[in-house]
Amino acid sequence: MSDSGTIEAGVHRVSFRVYYEDTDLAGIVYHANYLKFFERGRSDFLRVAGIDQRALSQGEDGLFFAVRHMDVDFKKPARFDDIVTVESRIKAISGARVVIDQKVTCDGRVLSTAAVTVAALAAKGGPTRLPEAVRTRFSVLQDAADPA
Amino acid sequence: MSDSGTIEAGVHRVSFRVYYEDTDLAGIVYHANYLKFFERGRSDFLRVAGIDQRALSQGEDGLFFAVRHMDVDFKKPARFDDIVTVESRIKAISGARVVIDQKVTCDGRVLSTAAVTVAALAAKGGPTRLPEAVRTRFSVLQDAADPA
Amino acid sequence: MSDSGTIEAGVHRVSFRVYYEDTDLAGIVYHANYLKFFERGRSDFLRVAGIDQRALSQGEDGLFFAVRHMDVDFKKPARFDDIVTVESRIKAISGARVVIDQKVTCDGRVLSTAAVTVAALAAKGGPTRLPEAVRTRFSVLQDAADPA
Amino acid sequence: MSDSGTIEAGVHRVSFRVYYEDTDLAGIVYHANYLKFFERGRSDFLRVAGIDQRALSQGEDGLFFAVRHMDVDFKKPARFDDIVTVESRIKAISGARVVIDQKVTCDGRVLSTAAVTVAALAAKGGPTRLPEAVRTRFSVLQDAADPA
Repeated sequence: MSDSGTIEAGVHRVSFRVYYEDTDLAGIVYHANYLKFFERGRSDFLRVAGIDQRALSQGEDGLFFAVRHMDVDFKKPARFDDIVTVESRIKAISGARVVIDQKVTCDGRVLSTAAVTVAALAAKGGPTRLPEAVRTRFSVLQDAADPA
Repeated sequence: MSDSGTIEAGVHRVSFRVYYEDTDLAGIVYHANYLKFFERGRSDFLRVAGIDQRALSQGEDGLFFAVRHMDVDFKKPARFDDIVTVESRIKAISGARVVIDQKVTCDGRVLSTAAVTVAALAAKGGPTRLPEAVRTRFSVLQDAADPA
Repeated sequence: MSDSGTIEAGVHRVSFRVYYEDTDLAGIVYHANYLKFFERGRSDFLRVAGIDQRALSQGEDGLFFAVRHMDVDFKKPARFDDIVTVESRIKAISGARVVIDQKVTCDGRVLSTAAVTVAALAAKGGPTRLPEAVRTRFSVLQDAADPA
Repeated sequence: MSDSGTIEAGVHRVSFRVYYEDTDLAGIVYHANYLKFFERGRSDFLRVAGIDQRALSQGEDGLFFAVRHMDVDFKKPARFDDIVTVESRIKAISGARVVIDQKVTCDGRVLSTAAVTVAALAAKGGPTRLPEAVRTRFSVLQDAADPA
């Protein structure tokens, strides 16, 4: 079974194997492919949090989440056959946007970190507000991750 | 300017640079990425032949082309920085399908060959017939490529 | 934990989630990305069978497996959020090649099938024989899958 | 012929077609694929500037360029069949690193911007200084782009 990971104290973690497709001729994971790992992590985070992207995209008021900004550090390489873990937590929420802090680790070493700003886009075009249920869910997750 | 290639005697040719994204840890182009080169070749073939995929996909009778079958030989590797050429020609046409013969070459050497069966799919679901204008265009191109 | 799947009666099965990265504008999995699913399936098949590709690639006699031929049927589409299962079994073995029959299914429906010919390539260039231990392992798996 | 673009006043520009492979189910270019466009732009920038990445990677002192940091804005979407232009210019140079400012545009509209920090990595492992000839070349390009 494919595994969508778990949320503990507001932090979602899920692991992926590095396959041939992820590597490049330098023998390591091609830098753009970390963005795929981050995106898988966010998709699984939403799923485990009970937010159904497929359902949200349907119908008259259908919406997608679109990445608006990414600040990414590439610190150490992952290699073929490694198992990497993606960690995600909600950092900030506004009317139409959410900022998610993410990290890719391997055996406890941090390989890459990212701060990702995601916005809601109406399927019929243009930005739209986050649905109230989604905002609330994000808010609870944020509080769980940063209880201070 | 991006270059969509040319059709001569029914055969379309277009060239692409091999970038980092295309390679894998074996130092050569990852096998699945040849399918991207073939698909770019088919897209440019249609474009140069005057068939507008974007326009065809719009509206009530919108349709997409979907690959149904591929028989692919991987003969020699392409490497970073190589310029590869994709050749495409119409091999067979039926009501809802077209078979395209394709080839990737580099400096005259054949790297990969493919016979690709493409079917028309209605955007609202299910197979559909090729539009008459598209069939006719394919037919003219097929005759030009195999004048016998 | 990432899951490499299991081998039963010579047939390996492993499951993957379909993410955004896998889809295209037709709303379904981009055809070339099935080859990534097939390749992940083969990598996990080898791993679970005790064949370590990373170790095999090291040193003086290092070798890679390279795809030589694929015959692929694309029957039905997979969509975002689907969980697809890749099935793999050894079909034929020769001195330097192995043919693997593969299938991608979703909820019991067959989405795509492939017959994949893989050859051993020396890291220093050129084809090479399959190591004896690998051949033997493939042979046992083949017998388990086709006991007749 | 594949076209590597041109450098004018220190700014490199090269154009790429958007193909099916680049899109996702939202009907637009998948965000991680902009990083591929940026990387193609940097590769072509180096090539046109006379810096041969393939040659640099060979031999005892072989080196690769690795992305260390990216700050990326995704402003507007690119769509299937669009032609996008990647602009690149040298922003800063230090002993082992170079910062490149990049932009993807389509018909004059800015779709995405990135500040990319690239470091030299020895093929045998670990960071290494930029070769003197490369530093000098980058320096000339930087001066041409920011003559102030």
